[in-house]
Amino acid sequence: MIGTIAAVLTTLSFVPQAIQVIKTKDTSGISLGMYVMFVTGVFLWFVHGINIGDFPVIGANAITFIFASIILFYKVKYTFFVKK
Amino acid sequence: MIGTIAAVLTTLSFVPQAIQVIKTKDTSGISLGMYVMFVTGVFLWFVHGINIGDFPVIGANAITFIFASIILFYKVKYTFFVKK
Repeated sequence: MIGTIAAVLTTLSFVPQAIQVIKTKDTSGISLGMYVMFVTGVFLWFVHGINIGDFPVIGANAITFIFASIILFYKVKYTFFVKK
Repeated sequence: MIGTIAAVLTTLSFVPQAIQVIKTKDTSGISLGMYVMFVTGVFLWFVHGINIGDFPVIGANAITFIFASIILFYKVKYTFFVKK
């Protein structure tokens, strides 16, 4: 039960960050290194979940991957491509 | 093996973010909601690890908790207590 609440919290925590980045376009305080490592890591968690056939690991990391990728996308966009 | 690399990446990804926040004091782009949810979730993962007696879950979440807490601490500090 605690594990389930933990999984829901850590998975959904990236939603408010993604919304904030989309709304404010303010990514200066966000670490590019963090999101490169994190998105790569979450993708590997997803692959690991498929390897061990564990649906919670697959599902939680698939959702986290989507939202963390959105944050990384905007970070890369506003760091390298769009001058504000 | 993929699971180990995944765990190392997602655990250590918060290190560059913590360093950036400490150095730049720029937390405007960081979501308070994200870190409140995330730190709470990681703490519950840690408790879950103790409950199931799984050392990798305990260790990875203990480390993540430390770095994510540092980020949350600075976010709260610069949002509510220190006007820049």
